[in-house]
Amino acid sequence: MTSCFLGDRPGTCLAGAVRATTVLLQPIGAFEHHGPHLPLHTDAIVVDELARVLVRDRPELGLMVLPTLSYGLSSEHVWAAGTVSLNPATLLAVLDDLASSVVRAGIDRLAFLNGHGGNTHLLRVACREMRVRHGLLTFLLQPALPPDNGGPPGDPREEGLGIHGGLGETSMMMHLRPELVELEKAEPSLPAWLRGYTHLGFGRAAEFGWTSQDLCESGVIGDPTLASAELGRQRFELAVATVGDALAEVAAFDFPGPAAPGRGIRSSTGRARRQVS
Amino acid sequence: MTSCFLGDRPGTCLAGAVRATTVLLQPIGAFEHHGPHLPLHTDAIVVDELARVLVRDRPELGLMVLPTLSYGLSSEHVWAAGTVSLNPATLLAVLDDLASSVVRAGIDRLAFLNGHGGNTHLLRVACREMRVRHGLLTFLLQPALPPDNGGPPGDPREEGLGIHGGLGETSMMMHLRPELVELEKAEPSLPAWLRGYTHLGFGRAAEFGWTSQDLCESGVIGDPTLASAELGRQRFELAVATVGDALAEVAAFDFPGPAAPGRGIRSSTGRARRQVS
Amino acid sequence: MTSCFLGDRPGTCLAGAVRATTVLLQPIGAFEHHGPHLPLHTDAIVVDELARVLVRDRPELGLMVLPTLSYGLSSEHVWAAGTVSLNPATLLAVLDDLASSVVRAGIDRLAFLNGHGGNTHLLRVACREMRVRHGLLTFLLQPALPPDNGGPPGDPREEGLGIHGGLGETSMMMHLRPELVELEKAEPSLPAWLRGYTHLGFGRAAEFGWTSQDLCESGVIGDPTLASAELGRQRFELAVATVGDALAEVAAFDFPGPAAPGRGIRSSTGRARRQVS
Amino acid sequence: MTSCFLGDRPGTCLAGAVRATTVLLQPIGAFEHHGPHLPLHTDAIVVDELARVLVRDRPELGLMVLPTLSYGLSSEHVWAAGTVSLNPATLLAVLDDLASSVVRAGIDRLAFLNGHGGNTHLLRVACREMRVRHGLLTFLLQPALPPDNGGPPGDPREEGLGIHGGLGETSMMMHLRPELVELEKAEPSLPAWLRGYTHLGFGRAAEFGWTSQDLCESGVIGDPTLASAELGRQRFELAVATVGDALAEVAAFDFPGPAAPGRGIRSSTGRARRQVS
Amino acid sequence: MTSCFLGDRPGTCLAGAVRATTVLLQPIGAFEHHGPHLPLHTDAIVVDELARVLVRDRPELGLMVLPTLSYGLSSEHVWAAGTVSLNPATLLAVLDDLASSVVRAGIDRLAFLNGHGGNTHLLRVACREMRVRHGLLTFLLQPALPPDNGGPPGDPREEGLGIHGGLGETSMMMHLRPELVELEKAEPSLPAWLRGYTHLGFGRAAEFGWTSQDLCESGVIGDPTLASAELGRQRFELAVATVGDALAEVAAFDFPGPAAPGRGIRSSTGRARRQVS
Amino acid sequence: MTSCFLGDRPGTCLAGAVRATTVLLQPIGAFEHHGPHLPLHTDAIVVDELARVLVRDRPELGLMVLPTLSYGLSSEHVWAAGTVSLNPATLLAVLDDLASSVVRAGIDRLAFLNGHGGNTHLLRVACREMRVRHGLLTFLLQPALPPDNGGPPGDPREEGLGIHGGLGETSMMMHLRPELVELEKAEPSLPAWLRGYTHLGFGRAAEFGWTSQDLCESGVIGDPTLASAELGRQRFELAVATVGDALAEVAAFDFPGPAAPGRGIRSSTGRARRQVS
Repeated sequence: MTSCFLGDRPGTCLAGAVRATTVLLQPIGAFEHHGPHLPLHTDAIVVDELARVLVRDRPELGLMVLPTLSYGLSSEHVWAAGTVSLNPATLLAVLDDLASSVVRAGIDRLAFLNGHGGNTHLLRVACREMRVRHGLLTFLLQPALPPDNGGPPGDPREEGLGIHGGLGETSMMMHLRPELVELEKAEPSLPAWLRGYTHLGFGRAAEFGWTSQDLCESGVIGDPTLASAELGRQRFELAVATVGDALAEVAAFDFPGPAAPGRGIRSSTGRARRQVS
Repeated sequence: MTSCFLGDRPGTCLAGAVRATTVLLQPIGAFEHHGPHLPLHTDAIVVDELARVLVRDRPELGLMVLPTLSYGLSSEHVWAAGTVSLNPATLLAVLDDLASSVVRAGIDRLAFLNGHGGNTHLLRVACREMRVRHGLLTFLLQPALPPDNGGPPGDPREEGLGIHGGLGETSMMMHLRPELVELEKAEPSLPAWLRGYTHLGFGRAAEFGWTSQDLCESGVIGDPTLASAELGRQRFELAVATVGDALAEVAAFDFPGPAAPGRGIRSSTGRARRQVS
Repeated sequence: MTSCFLGDRPGTCLAGAVRATTVLLQPIGAFEHHGPHLPLHTDAIVVDELARVLVRDRPELGLMVLPTLSYGLSSEHVWAAGTVSLNPATLLAVLDDLASSVVRAGIDRLAFLNGHGGNTHLLRVACREMRVRHGLLTFLLQPALPPDNGGPPGDPREEGLGIHGGLGETSMMMHLRPELVELEKAEPSLPAWLRGYTHLGFGRAAEFGWTSQDLCESGVIGDPTLASAELGRQRFELAVATVGDALAEVAAFDFPGPAAPGRGIRSSTGRARRQVS
Repeated sequence: MTSCFLGDRPGTCLAGAVRATTVLLQPIGAFEHHGPHLPLHTDAIVVDELARVLVRDRPELGLMVLPTLSYGLSSEHVWAAGTVSLNPATLLAVLDDLASSVVRAGIDRLAFLNGHGGNTHLLRVACREMRVRHGLLTFLLQPALPPDNGGPPGDPREEGLGIHGGLGETSMMMHLRPELVELEKAEPSLPAWLRGYTHLGFGRAAEFGWTSQDLCESGVIGDPTLASAELGRQRFELAVATVGDALAEVAAFDFPGPAAPGRGIRSSTGRARRQVS
Repeated sequence: MTSCFLGDRPGTCLAGAVRATTVLLQPIGAFEHHGPHLPLHTDAIVVDELARVLVRDRPELGLMVLPTLSYGLSSEHVWAAGTVSLNPATLLAVLDDLASSVVRAGIDRLAFLNGHGGNTHLLRVACREMRVRHGLLTFLLQPALPPDNGGPPGDPREEGLGIHGGLGETSMMMHLRPELVELEKAEPSLPAWLRGYTHLGFGRAAEFGWTSQDLCESGVIGDPTLASAELGRQRFELAVATVGDALAEVAAFDFPGPAAPGRGIRSSTGRARRQVS
Repeated sequence: MTSCFLGDRPGTCLAGAVRATTVLLQPIGAFEHHGPHLPLHTDAIVVDELARVLVRDRPELGLMVLPTLSYGLSSEHVWAAGTVSLNPATLLAVLDDLASSVVRAGIDRLAFLNGHGGNTHLLRVACREMRVRHGLLTFLLQPALPPDNGGPPGDPREEGLGIHGGLGETSMMMHLRPELVELEKAEPSLPAWLRGYTHLGFGRAAEFGWTSQDLCESGVIGDPTLASAELGRQRFELAVATVGDALAEVAAFDFPGPAAPGRGIRSSTGRARRQVS
């Protein structure tokens, strides 16, 4: 079966269509404050568009795309009206229920396409848990990994601090949905005070817990005035190419060892957890 | 502010736009087996379309529409490949987190637009809890209430048993998204054996727990061969009119008593729960 | 074995007494404010009496009655001193533990006899979950289904609004336990203001979350001054007859399909959830 | 107000009736295997009877008795058909919800009357938590503390091992509900093998986790053939006297320090837990 | 393998070293206010030292000692700055995860060495649950059982009230870690007011929920001015001897019945809990 | 107060010793399979030693070191006997309870010193939650960040794959605790097969969920045969210097904005979550 949105197909199609290489793709965004110039649903819009283009342009991947999870883990923005955030325990429960559903569908590969940096660490935890508890092969892809998630520092004018509502996200939205961007309201908003620290900061020896308001009063962390639709186009096309090629590898991926999919996870003593009968 | 999809707007718009009458509308669907002729995402597609038309045709309602919750409580279909279901405890947690977010947005009215009968009872529980714990005014609307949720029996040819993938849902989809309906695969599938009972059945003295496979081996409960796009058009337009008019009342609704919104819920003894300091 | 209170029998009796038709009956009430004229335990008293009469008068049903669950989901009355309410998550956990216990007893049929309208929706959710997770046949019966739970509107003098402490419950208690009724304190208490709405209301297009104080300041919703012991006698006898006959059907009930009791629930792909070993 | 069953009274009575000395009494039993000679509900029957007699004979205590919690923590008997057991986390949640309800009722004193040894340790944990989280004065009373809960060894013929279905419980039931005792089926069942240990055993240096089947294959731990109605009468009357006198002290009890009821629990730094707003 | 700290050994050693008699020893302490004269980590220090001496002096027991759980259930001291306490539900979850890990290691015997009276009741609950859910043989040992946990009343000068920071604990610390004891700050602190009650008190008919501040404003409950290093030495040596001898019995212990370790727990009806597939 | 182990001090010392710059340091390790050459407790040993040296050599930092959390999130090693792992939900609960305790101590700064790569992502989630829910300043430091956590690739002979039991950890242990290293059993164990992928791998576009057995059958991921005590000394001393200097910044750190510590987190609408009273 060529790449599709699974929600558009009947469930009965799975019996004949699932292959060992089938990849279920779960986009996940967020619903959160992005400053006065970007819409609340920015992160979901980007992954929605990316998934749409992948289905259209990469039919040979045989992707089955699930509906986007619109609400994510946005604790850093709950101070700002309009943010809808799930607690970490809630989101872990949602993902565990999803994994059970994937197993029941007879599919081994589940890949997340994540548009929100605040989801990344929790998804990393969940990908491992789904591997161990449910025996799934799990993957995590992002249109672009932001600097505070281990990604490259990006445009030097943002000094590695452009992680929310800045040059990158604003450009992407100017390309994808220009009618939703109010660029005239955008202002540069960078935590210049972070320069005063040597060991504390994104990608440094000491990380710290923060809200977007802690970093910059506006809750924007980056410089959206540097954005342009052309830059957004370039970044989006790069994301399409990179994520698409990575998904081709995902479809072919396998572990060499004895715990590969379909064979389950067993303890080295051969002892299973006993349950109340 | 006229009716809009809130995700398309910046969060900063709320400060000036929220009125005492503002209604936040949360569509909720399901992702579940609907037989060989309807797509997995049928329930979400219907409420998405309904929300889209309401925003377009009822701007004066000032609705703020949230992104659709794509996964619901579909325990009755977990036997069928493709169904993605949240556990009741998970969905209650998602809804409680949502309510916290609504309160932080400074909005008092939250209305659910529910497209899946399997969500109904849990949403009824949640609407009350949100009222009591969060002080919100909460509402539950459906395009059409199915017979097993207390709705009217519908077309007599389905004998009050057309609750899943039958005449109604199939017609609605033939009107809204005909390209996703594979009508040639549809077959009538009614739990005729239920006629043998006097007290057991939908809307009778004794209800019972069931899966869709329990009722009919195909998991469809209804007669989709009776469906037509014209019938779907009529039903959809009726839903638009009814839900729209109901939402006008929702915007104006208030309780007369001392526990109205903004005033919180207090016990009759004036004693609050004490917490560990 | 003829109908009995299971708590009066030793557990060892089960080995010889359980039949495929054996019905375990779990009465459930509430402990909540019912106005100044009815006792806190009204809902439990009614189902206790009903269970007692069924055991006495319908020995051939072979019912095994469990002890009444005295505390239910009474969020709508927590503002009123004396109400003891379990949270929805707590009550779902209690019911899940109960289902595990029923399975261990080797019994397939569990029927709830519910005396409190505020429990109904949660019990509907639980009946389905018990069916799916534990493979039980589950049933939900009520002495009388109130209008806000999908039941008939009742006495026209209450305009379909007599759902708590009104004509019906007060009459029933005057028949069953007259010494506990302080009728001289009863006052009519109807949410007349609801008449102003067309789409909002019990059994209408838009439901809403409410507390009893929201509807009427007294927390009573109905007109107890219309009550009489004679009316209570008629209603109680009707409940005995209806519930008894329904239970006869419950004992004989079976699903026709492949997921009938004893055969468990399997996914259509034959894949089970894998667990950490 | 003289001692009463609170469930028989309207909630509105609390406003005038609650004193600083008012004691809410919560009986709690279990529903579990007691061998072939005693009914499943033995533990609840005993505390029900005890509460009934206390209300009748000690009106001056002003007790408000809640309905008995019929299901407890009976993990040690889940191997035996008929046992209904709540998980520890479930029972802790039930008790926490109860404490919230007690606080809302404006009552400071909550005493448990516990009939099942398997509940004791969890109730000890819960009594402390209710004190700390809810600011309640909490108490735990038992008709008789069994040897494995720290009580005296009892009749020497049972060698300190008569803890379940033995001389004590059987005698009590022969006095209270002789028609429910099938003494002809009773057999002595003592874990004689425990004598082989010096440090392991009830009330010794090393305790151990056990099920009733671990100790004795029948699940009875004691010698019911030594029981008599006369002994039961003596024990029951002793329990009535002891528990009654203890409750008189409970009503008068107060802590001398700054954290007494009504004043809440504050940390020594005066810092409260901050919550997400 | 002779007694060891398991954390010092590679996991691969288990394959050859685990015997049917192998005992995994889990020390557990607390981190809590002990007055001005004793360190916060007193309870953990004592069990750490005890475990260290047992490993050294009782190699033949083949103990495998796990790292000490430093935080326990200290609700009674949360009012005092410095106390770190886990909620009961959290600690139960930690212990359940531990049990799963023990089963995977192929070890049947898990013994707790508990240094904090506030943990005792919860550990009793957990030992039973681990036996029932995980099929483990579980044990609970303490250096000395305090009077409020069912232990002997101790030195008469403390009147059975020396349960926290008093003669016993202070002496033990003066022996083990004298440099951490600030005896000059110690003051007698006994709840003399408890003498006014006949039925209420440690080991009496009615127990009650308390915080350490409820009993004595200082949070110390005992008379540390009576302490001496010599007394501490005697008590510690007695603890070493008693716990060591008890552990020898633990290694040899077995239940006689059909539910012994390795055979799991089955219900008497042979029915297992069915799961969603 | 100079740097200390807080557990060695009485809680009463906090009143005079806590400054605005006081840093509470929580070491956290793991208890997990590290191959045949390293002990199970390797990760905790390293952070214990690091904390010990920091207290000794950096007294001016005024650190208050908490006892090490010995068990972490080790799902990737649960297949290997000896691993003790907490579930993510359990560890999040432990950390939330810890945060409550820190707030009650009147301390604003909590820094984690983490020795296990498998804990990193969950700690990142927890640091943010503690900031948002409890208003704490939270920090995350590691002796060395491994490549799969965003750290540098390390020794080229391990090709960026030396993340568990390889050159780095083995060298560190040869320096710190040589008697616990069985180097003769060490073997190189690198997932050479990963080279076949372009987009999948540590620090690449697509991450994946894995167990240590998935990557290499031995569960070691790295080349311990390259290890030496001298290299370990260098790395340990670098860690001491880097972490020490970072902690100096931690003590001086503050956010510039309105949500700095002590001022709590408020929503932009000024609306707090309302609770049931």
